[in-house]
Order: sequence, then structure tokens, then C-alpha cells
Amino acid sequence: MKHLLSVSDLTKETATGLLDEAERFQQALLGREVRKLPTLRGRTVMTVFFENSTRTRVSFEVAGKWMSADVINVSASSSSVSKGESLRDTALTLHAAGADALIVRHPASGAAHRIAEWTGDGNGGGPAVINAGDGTHEHPTQALLDALTLRQRLGGIEGKRIAIVGDILHSRVARSNAFLLSMLGAEVVLVAPPTLLPVGVSTWPVTVSHSLDAELPGADAVLMLRVQAERMNGGFFPSPREYSITYGLSERRLALLPEHAVVLHPGPMLRGMEIASAVADSPKTAVLQQVTNGVHVRMAVLFGLLVGTEEAAAL
Amino acid sequence: MKHLLSVSDLTKETATGLLDEAERFQQALLGREVRKLPTLRGRTVMTVFFENSTRTRVSFEVAGKWMSADVINVSASSSSVSKGESLRDTALTLHAAGADALIVRHPASGAAHRIAEWTGDGNGGGPAVINAGDGTHEHPTQALLDALTLRQRLGGIEGKRIAIVGDILHSRVARSNAFLLSMLGAEVVLVAPPTLLPVGVSTWPVTVSHSLDAELPGADAVLMLRVQAERMNGGFFPSPREYSITYGLSERRLALLPEHAVVLHPGPMLRGMEIASAVADSPKTAVLQQVTNGVHVRMAVLFGLLVGTEEAAAL
Amino acid sequence: MKHLLSVSDLTKETATGLLDEAERFQQALLGREVRKLPTLRGRTVMTVFFENSTRTRVSFEVAGKWMSADVINVSASSSSVSKGESLRDTALTLHAAGADALIVRHPASGAAHRIAEWTGDGNGGGPAVINAGDGTHEHPTQALLDALTLRQRLGGIEGKRIAIVGDILHSRVARSNAFLLSMLGAEVVLVAPPTLLPVGVSTWPVTVSHSLDAELPGADAVLMLRVQAERMNGGFFPSPREYSITYGLSERRLALLPEHAVVLHPGPMLRGMEIASAVADSPKTAVLQQVTNGVHVRMAVLFGLLVGTEEAAAL
Repeated sequence: MKHLLSVSDLTKETATGLLDEAERFQQALLGREVRKLPTLRGRTVMTVFFENSTRTRVSFEVAGKWMSADVINVSASSSSVSKGESLRDTALTLHAAGADALIVRHPASGAAHRIAEWTGDGNGGGPAVINAGDGTHEHPTQALLDALTLRQRLGGIEGKRIAIVGDILHSRVARSNAFLLSMLGAEVVLVAPPTLLPVGVSTWPVTVSHSLDAELPGADAVLMLRVQAERMNGGFFPSPREYSITYGLSERRLALLPEHAVVLHPGPMLRGMEIASAVADSPKTAVLQQVTNGVHVRMAVLFGLLVGTEEAAAL
Repeated sequence: MKHLLSVSDLTKETATGLLDEAERFQQALLGREVRKLPTLRGRTVMTVFFENSTRTRVSFEVAGKWMSADVINVSASSSSVSKGESLRDTALTLHAAGADALIVRHPASGAAHRIAEWTGDGNGGGPAVINAGDGTHEHPTQALLDALTLRQRLGGIEGKRIAIVGDILHSRVARSNAFLLSMLGAEVVLVAPPTLLPVGVSTWPVTVSHSLDAELPGADAVLMLRVQAERMNGGFFPSPREYSITYGLSERRLALLPEHAVVLHPGPMLRGMEIASAVADSPKTAVLQQVTNGVHVRMAVLFGLLVGTEEAAAL
Repeated sequence: MKHLLSVSDLTKETATGLLDEAERFQQALLGREVRKLPTLRGRTVMTVFFENSTRTRVSFEVAGKWMSADVINVSASSSSVSKGESLRDTALTLHAAGADALIVRHPASGAAHRIAEWTGDGNGGGPAVINAGDGTHEHPTQALLDALTLRQRLGGIEGKRIAIVGDILHSRVARSNAFLLSMLGAEVVLVAPPTLLPVGVSTWPVTVSHSLDAELPGADAVLMLRVQAERMNGGFFPSPREYSITYGLSERRLALLPEHAVVLHPGPMLRGMEIASAVADSPKTAVLQQVTNGVHVRMAVLFGLLVGTEEAAAL
């Protein structure tokens, strides 16, 4: 594997391998005072964020630094983009300046794919490109960290019923999770109003429901989504109040879940809107475990792309 | 000591211990070409600045890096805050992402205290939280670096008469210094117009004066303050011209000070407003020594919080 | 050499020495998986950018990190400048906070020179100051990386005819290149409309032409410039369309160049304006080689200023 652009770059085997590797990093580091491995010493990792995202950028930066990589942050506001440079030239320039890996967040769907094409030399050379969220398309490391969290909380993913709830239309998290969790053997149900479902949803490996109350008693896990208000420009959206009443995870709804079920949210959470504050703080909710797993999953991905392929290539 | 939130977290003994430790770091590093200690290798320190402050952020970043910590900068403009996340969730997220220490600058008084409460587990776990300035409340590392500078310049703090001059009302530096210097045995006098004094000043361990000219001949040190124009929204403030005439440190006033006296300013200085340019550059003024001491004081604080407590806990 | 403020700080010998050193770094690192030297361990390098420039900042940051320096980024937007601090106080503060080198980008011509004067102690002490672009004045590391690229592409600089094309008036790159390449033995011709030539150009070691078509057949290299639209405020400027027609490097014009000639551009490129897209991607164009050389040239400069002088001083 050269890049991680989409969940479709993974197979059940490679995805499971990354989760196992993430857990090995976790065991090697958790509870230790000195969290520092020499794994990526002398490798240069650049985060290239054309949209703000503290949590994702920090997670990758910690992952890189804990493996001794040189991590360099590039943000759009300070970038040559504002001087009219093309995305292709920016990417080629960062690679020429020494990037072994480009971690890309971009508002346009497909941006990371294009960067991987542009910076590749056709013979497997060029930087590793990691899609850290592109428009409404994909966010594969988020799906991997969610899968790791579900595996740890539920003892496995195979055969579990997982509800993804809310603004599916604008959510790259929903798409990446639907495909990854389904590949890992889960039964995925999308719970959303018709206006917040993407056009091609009938081709996804999921079922669709419009009633959250009906889905909760049978769910092993609920993945709440952030309402991407910044991506909405039409009039079809339910009002915030309506959304909250119909698709918000209230305390009453939490009680409908089975005892063993777990609640995930990719953050940042809008408490009171998508999720009641008491639910966000409930022991059923795994939001902080998701954050911690995110660092270890990203360590596994960086390690796999920067070292794993070389080792494999050397065989 | 788990956190440094306020000067009241310190005793005369622990404060003096930090100043001694800072001087040990200073002696170990000053004049050396290679300024790098392995002390905090594998520890993750995050600066979390909801207000801009180059000098304080850079000082902490240098302190962390000289001790080999992984330092990660988070600024409000790029943070999840702009997406509606609560301060509590931001802090919990950064800790879950691996922060051993959170260095917090925030416009709201009490923000660092709340973060320490939220991220603690009740059993002494959770990250160390350092208050790097909260609203008009406290800035304890600034007070420590001022104390170190005064100790070096005056040979000690006990029994010295120290005038803190100007916009006391909006100054966390004034508050932290008044309490720390008084605890260390100094006689502190606040020199300010009644409109720029806080309401509860009668409970502070200080005397109050409205005449700078009257106080200078008896002062061992003068701490000038930055006028926090951005925190003023009333009409009681003297005009800049009035302020400068009444409370600015002019060359004429500098001559009123005893020969051995020293002038401090936390920076950034508004030359010509709070302090005449010739005074700012006078050998009596210790502003650059303050900056250098700031790095060593912050090394001592980070070391004390991240390593000291563990060593103490191991006893 | 204590600072690198201007090409006039260099002689033919010291400039050639830096290019040789850059190539040694290049050979030591290129093609290696682990790009990390201990050369500047324990040295503190601060980039201080009062104008945005991803490519230059990233290049210096990579250069510093590959030599194990502590690199700290300071940008104007987050700096004390916005609180009214003088440039002199900002520079003195950053040095007092531990900077061994200040890498300065500033919109005012002469800013880096002033910082070097202010922070020096008159006895060779103070930080090394590197001018990373000051107003319309100089950008010496850009000229060095261009010279290295020309030397590698043409086999040498002595006797080569090099056309610098476009907005000379606002370009620090043009000025630094004209003087450096001329010092290294090249024949430099400036190709620009009269309105985009600086007043004192008759004192430069160059000839001037207004016809790009006439110059191309005899040129060994063409240095295209970025149009600094942000520095233009008059009405003398040719319109973008006029500029593109008269001074843009089109495919037709590329064909006028000799077979062996090379095209450079400092980036970011405005494709379709200064340079046709097909020309930018042509094998004659060396823009990415320039970027890669930039890192190695900056390694040589940082090494020369921070270690070289000490070694020389020790003789």
C-alpha cells in the first residue's frame, strides 16, 4: 500500500492488520512516561491543511513525533495558495522540499487522490499521501479509529449492528465508516432524513432508516455525526430544533440502547444539538477513547506507508 | 504540586525552589553552544493559546524543546472552538491525544483552573496544567521570572520596596506579582489612578499610591505594566496622553530612582506611552534579562510538574 | 561571515564555497531513507515571517530539522507586532529567548539589516541573521539556490548568458540574482518594460533589453519572475493580458531557446500569466530542482553561519 486515500484502498486483511498494529503501538506506549520510538527518525511528514482541524492535525502531529519523524505543518491561510498557486504546484513543491508523507485535508472531494497522482512518478516513487478528509468524500483514518474503538468496546465487529445517525449527506466520516465497517462484517444502518442522504446511497452496503427510535433497541453501536452546517446551502435541511428533536441522541433515547451498546462521535460535538450533554458524558460514550485510538491508528498508518512498503518491497 | 494555576499554588519554599532550579538550568545552559538536555524526552507538551502571545508561547516552546519534549502548538484561530466545541471538550480531547502538559492562555479569568478540574481524574491523574495568562486574573510564570530577575539584580527580594505601576485593573501580571513578591518578603506598592485599580484591592498584601513621583525615590524596583487597551471598554480611563504624563516612566522620573534600582516591563512595550524609549534602553532596565529568565523559569516549572511530582510520588 | 543579509555579503569564493557545501549535503542525504544529521543539535533557529511564504519557511524549517536544530516559527499575525511592539524590541526579545539564528521575511526593504545591527553586540556576538526576503530589496538564499541549479544544469555559470525576465522593479529575487550571477561570471540581461525597471538599474552589472523574443535565442538560461501584484499601486503597469503577451514565456517562445537552455521560476507560478502551463511542465524547466536545491543551500548557509564561523574563530 502506497497511499491511504479511501477505505477502498484497504482489504479486510490490511484493515485488520492496521488495527492490530495500532494496538501494538498502544500497548508499547500506554502508561509509559517516555512515549518516543525511533521508528520514523529522519522521515519528513507534512500536514497540509486547507481546512482547519485541530483534532486531526494534532493527532497526526503527535503520531509522527512519537515515532521521531520531523513533522512540518502547512496551513492554507499561510500558503502560496493565497498567491494563486495551483494545488498541483503546491503539492509538487512540498514533495520537492523533502516530504516523505503528505497528510492532506481539503474542502474539495478528491483532492488527496489528485495529489497522489500528481506527485507519483509512475514507478511507485513520490510521497505517501494520506487523506485526512476531502470535502464530503472520505476520511479513512477516522473510520479506522472508529473501528478500533468498536472492536475494543464490543469485542469484535463481525455481525454487529451499527447505526450511523444524522447528516450523512455532508459527512465523509459516514461514508468511510459505512464502507469500512461493512467490509469488516458489520451490519450498517444509516439513520437520517431523506434530505440528508446522498444520491447514490442505494449502492452502499447499508440499509436505510428514518426512525432513530426504531433502530436503537437493536443497535450494538451508534455513530453520531457532526452537523456540517458550513456545507449546507439549501433549504431542505431540517431546522436545528427539528434536527435535534428527530435525530439528536437524548437521554431518553440513550435508555433505548441495549446495555452493552456504545456511542461514538467524531467531534467536535455540538452538545444539546446532535447529542445531549449527559449522553456525551455517559460511560456508554467512547469519544475520548476514539481520540486516543486516533493517535495509535495514525502511527500504524504512517508506519505502514513509510516503512512497511519498503520492507515489503525489499522481499 | 500538580498544576501551576495561580501564585497561591506556591509557598515561599516552593517558589524559592523553582527560582533556584531555574538558575541551575541557566548555569547548565548559558554560554554553551549545544543547549539541549534529555530531561523531558518522550513527554508531550501542548501550548493552547486562545489569545495571541508570541513571547510567552515562544518562551514555553524553547523551554520544552531545550529539554527534548515534543511541543505541539494549538491556537484558537485554527481550533475546534470555531466549530462550536466547548472549552471542556477541547481540553479533554487534547489530553486524550497525548498531552502530558497543557499550557493555557485564555481571555477568560479562571479558564486554566477549570481545565485542570475537567481533565483531572480525582486521583492525581490527568495532565499538568500551566496558566499562561487568564483574562485579568493571573500569569504565575511571569511573576516567577520577574522575581528571578529582581533577585539577580537586587541580590534578594526580602525587604525590598517594589512599585507596580499603571493599569493594575486589567493586569494579570500585576496581580500575580503583587502576591508572589509579597510572599517572598517584599514591600509592594501599587501606583495607579483610582479608575485603574481593581475593586478588592484593599484585601491585597500591598499599599496603594496615586503619585509615581512620590514613590520613585524610595523604590528598589519599578514594574511597569502594559496598558491593556484591548480590555478597556469604559470611559473612566485616562486618555493615552494623560496616562503617559501621569504614569509613564520618563527620563526625568528615571533620575528620581536610587542608583541601584531596576526597571522591569513584561513586554510588549509601547515606547513613548508607558515608558520613554531612552528609559527602555537604559542599563537600569532589565527587560531582556526578564525574557531570558523566562525560558529558564519555564524549564523549571515544566520539570517540576512533569518529573518532580513523579519523583516525589515515588518516595 | 556572521550574517547573510545581501548578496554583497558574499565574494565569489564564499558563494562558491556555499554551493559546494550545499552539494555535499545533497550527496550525503539524497536517496537516503533517514535524512537526519546531528550538525546543529542544540542550536535554536527561529523563522520570523512578517509576510506569508510557505515555500521559503518550509524550506528553512526542513533544513534546520534535518540538521537536528530546534526550529521555532513566529508569524506576524500572532506576534506582538499587533500589540504595537517595535521591530527592534521583537528581534531583541526573540534573541533573548534563545535564538541562535533569526530567519527574517519582512515587507520593508532593509528590515533584516536593521535587525542584525540591533541584535549585534559590536563584538561579533548576537544571533546570525538571514534575510529571507525584505521588501523589494534582496533574497540571497533564493539567488544561491538558483545559482546551484544553473551550475548543475549548465555545468557552470562562468560565461553563460542569463536573461532575467519580467517585473524587475518589485523583485528582490531579480536584484539578488543579477548581482550574484554576475559575480560568478555570468552575463546577465534584464528583460522588462521600462515601467518595471528600478531607477538605479544603470549601476547594476547587467545589460537591459525590452524584447524577450530577441533575447531568447542567445540565452543559456531564463529566470522568470513572479509578478508582485501586491506591491503595485500605480497605473504604469502593463495590464495582465499585455504583460502575458509581451513577457510571458509561451510555448512558441520556449522553442526560440537553444537546446541546452534551462528555465527557472522562484514560484509560486501563475500559470498562463508569466509562464504557459506546458512550459512550466517542460523538461527544460527546473522549478522542482530549485525547490530541492533550496533545502540544501539553506542547510549550507545555516551550517556556515552557526558552525563555520565558530570553527573559523577557533583557528
